[in-house]
Amino acid sequence: MTTLSSPQKINGKFKGKDILDANQFSKRDIKIIFDKTDKMKKAVLKKGGLKLLEHKVLAPLFFEPSSRTFSSFSAAMQRLGGSVIPLPNMANTSVAKGESLEDTIKVFASYSDILVIRHPEQGKVLHAADITSVPVINAGDGIGEHPTQALYDLYTINESLKKVSGLNVVFFGELGRYRPVNSLAKLLALYKNKITFVSPPQGKVQTAIIDYLKARDIEFSETETIDKVIGNCDVLYVTRVKKEFMSEALYKKIQGKYVVNKKLLQKMKKKSLIMHALPRIDEIATEVDDDPRSIYLKSQVINGMYVRMALLALVLGKI
Amino acid sequence: MTTLSSPQKINGKFKGKDILDANQFSKRDIKIIFDKTDKMKKAVLKKGGLKLLEHKVLAPLFFEPSSRTFSSFSAAMQRLGGSVIPLPNMANTSVAKGESLEDTIKVFASYSDILVIRHPEQGKVLHAADITSVPVINAGDGIGEHPTQALYDLYTINESLKKVSGLNVVFFGELGRYRPVNSLAKLLALYKNKITFVSPPQGKVQTAIIDYLKARDIEFSETETIDKVIGNCDVLYVTRVKKEFMSEALYKKIQGKYVVNKKLLQKMKKKSLIMHALPRIDEIATEVDDDPRSIYLKSQVINGMYVRMALLALVLGKI
Amino acid sequence: MTTLSSPQKINGKFKGKDILDANQFSKRDIKIIFDKTDKMKKAVLKKGGLKLLEHKVLAPLFFEPSSRTFSSFSAAMQRLGGSVIPLPNMANTSVAKGESLEDTIKVFASYSDILVIRHPEQGKVLHAADITSVPVINAGDGIGEHPTQALYDLYTINESLKKVSGLNVVFFGELGRYRPVNSLAKLLALYKNKITFVSPPQGKVQTAIIDYLKARDIEFSETETIDKVIGNCDVLYVTRVKKEFMSEALYKKIQGKYVVNKKLLQKMKKKSLIMHALPRIDEIATEVDDDPRSIYLKSQVINGMYVRMALLALVLGKI
Repeated sequence: MTTLSSPQKINGKFKGKDILDANQFSKRDIKIIFDKTDKMKKAVLKKGGLKLLEHKVLAPLFFEPSSRTFSSFSAAMQRLGGSVIPLPNMANTSVAKGESLEDTIKVFASYSDILVIRHPEQGKVLHAADITSVPVINAGDGIGEHPTQALYDLYTINESLKKVSGLNVVFFGELGRYRPVNSLAKLLALYKNKITFVSPPQGKVQTAIIDYLKARDIEFSETETIDKVIGNCDVLYVTRVKKEFMSEALYKKIQGKYVVNKKLLQKMKKKSLIMHALPRIDEIATEVDDDPRSIYLKSQVINGMYVRMALLALVLGKI
Repeated sequence: MTTLSSPQKINGKFKGKDILDANQFSKRDIKIIFDKTDKMKKAVLKKGGLKLLEHKVLAPLFFEPSSRTFSSFSAAMQRLGGSVIPLPNMANTSVAKGESLEDTIKVFASYSDILVIRHPEQGKVLHAADITSVPVINAGDGIGEHPTQALYDLYTINESLKKVSGLNVVFFGELGRYRPVNSLAKLLALYKNKITFVSPPQGKVQTAIIDYLKARDIEFSETETIDKVIGNCDVLYVTRVKKEFMSEALYKKIQGKYVVNKKLLQKMKKKSLIMHALPRIDEIATEVDDDPRSIYLKSQVINGMYVRMALLALVLGKI
Repeated sequence: MTTLSSPQKINGKFKGKDILDANQFSKRDIKIIFDKTDKMKKAVLKKGGLKLLEHKVLAPLFFEPSSRTFSSFSAAMQRLGGSVIPLPNMANTSVAKGESLEDTIKVFASYSDILVIRHPEQGKVLHAADITSVPVINAGDGIGEHPTQALYDLYTINESLKKVSGLNVVFFGELGRYRPVNSLAKLLALYKNKITFVSPPQGKVQTAIIDYLKARDIEFSETETIDKVIGNCDVLYVTRVKKEFMSEALYKKIQGKYVVNKKLLQKMKKKSLIMHALPRIDEIATEVDDDPRSIYLKSQVINGMYVRMALLALVLGKI
């Protein structure tokens, strides 16, 4: 069962807070994050980084491997002068000897100033945050949340389209198990955006998200085909069909249908964006990569590092 | 066969020395370590760390994985401004291609200023130290030694009880394969302490330790049940039954009997300590965690980092 | 099929260049590298390192694990004040989810200032360099190239013998799949050196290398036995028979024959060198290790770190 938990609101005060769920942020919080991210971007382009987090130690607890998110957080911490405990994943750790998550969290919290946790099970990162007073950043929990992804997705939309409201955003593909959809939908709900969920019946967006949008009077719709919505779409957010969660037969059935190619691109507006949280398999044809609207391997990736630099500095009270 | 080797005594001079066995330390050495650890603790609490080990590189050679000890040493090195070669374990290394331990040690010693080695086989770390002139810290060798663990156990006892002598210390559980028992027993033997080993017949403390205590006229006893000793115990040092070394049947037989729970706690003195080197499985019930006497997930863990900071700085001659 | 690609020549300008193939270097380039390496060596011996690469981030992309090369590059980067994304290998990464090499390279290039790539397939690192504008260092690509190895091999020859020309260099063992042979042979071809390839018929040096030497009028020969060439040899470069690429039967047949022992040593000149890129298995008997001509576990290893420090600083434009 999917329940959306409610961690502490930020309310303009980041220091010492956990970053667990996209529902923690107000418009003002997001403005602060965007401003600080701008500063981080400038600093990196000018001199590679800043010395804000000297003597600070980040413990990455990746109970599910993720080279991309792990490396993005690592580079963010290192560019701020901080250190990362060099443990890319929690395989072969005490967890294998039968240690509880609670004990593991308490131990790593002793050594470090901030925990960045990824876990295959929804809710486990929130539970981890309850255990320790050290700030926790959710780097993805099962089919739950991925708030830092959503923050840099929104930052990138704002950077490219100069606005985060009044947009037609289309989520496209297998949506039910794809946590960035949950997080970004919540952020979009802060502003006057219209959301369309285009997915196969087996991959519909989670009911909890539908309920979240309804409760906030957000205009949205669900459909199985993209044809009717692509022409008026400002942001096409493509998702990976998660092969690891389905039969080979179902995978093939879905994967072939939910694909972005040049033909689809021709139906899109000139000023629009194609986004993807990556890794991308076949759901976006490589022929699309060079299109100026394709930002998934460009600004969307690098903004991830800038936003995480801003969040680390904010949560650690150094900015 | 278990032989206790005798590496070089410290004699107040840490610079360039290996840290291999608890028998290297005199009372004076331990006083120095405790003093430096106090300084490290203050520095971390005040500003996160110090810049003592800039440009120094630590090579962690974990031939047996250990997220906890690896991370504690990493954070210690990083908080002193040093670097850690980011290799959490030696699986998939040249050792797999058939390289000898001797060659591996020589290669890593070339790159680094200090080696922190864990090895599944007793004596291998001492052997490694013989090969290179770069200082080696033993981070646990098979059923042999774990000197840095014992040093922070003793530091924590001193911090909590304000003394390290005249104590009744009870080691409880499967003791024969649990190296922290060996190391701490040797340190306790430096002072007038009374030791009781409570274990099943299949998990008795090593003969070498018994001989070590006898040779030093230390008062000790061995028993299978805790009932008669718990009431007068100052430190209850609980150990994990190492499932990986025994049959499932034997494991269940031992594990169920050697457990600390609230009922046992009621028989303990108000001013006493429950310690554990972690990871803890079921041998301490979680209902005990909040008791003020339980320090295994609290000061005992964090003191590990402080003591290792002190040792790194001492051995590298920077304090 | 083996093709030797031709990446951009250095021509005295290292900043922003990729380091992919030994054929990129002129004598003048090598002189620059040697000079800067001397400086790095002095700095490390004096104070452990330099602060040239602060805020710079190195992404190690090891699609084939290599503790040695990984650690050598890591220590080099860290001793210059730079950071290393702590990902020792690319197992369990997005590649496993089906991501293309192209996407992976683009993502990591976003976070970092330099990529150090090892790949099991020849040519893949050159391909990676084509994809990104971030400088790429080839840390070994299949049976292709290993240019940084060759550079520190040559540096070590120069340091020991005070020259890099007019030498009789003998490559000894299984040569066809051993990339350091390719790279070093190309560097030796820049100077007037005579090369002898001593190998079993199943392990002959690659035709591409033979063609390379012929095209440059380099004196060389191929033979199966070492007896006639050992007496006049200045550098004996021993290689590991790569068990992982052949049958157990063939391995045993080759491994027993191509061995350096004390008996062979007696036939060598007093002023000569025995080198090996390591790891060494049985192809050099340990009885040879203490001979002053044996430098494979001594200067050859540590020079690897110094040369890589020089290359990192040069390519990043900080020296």
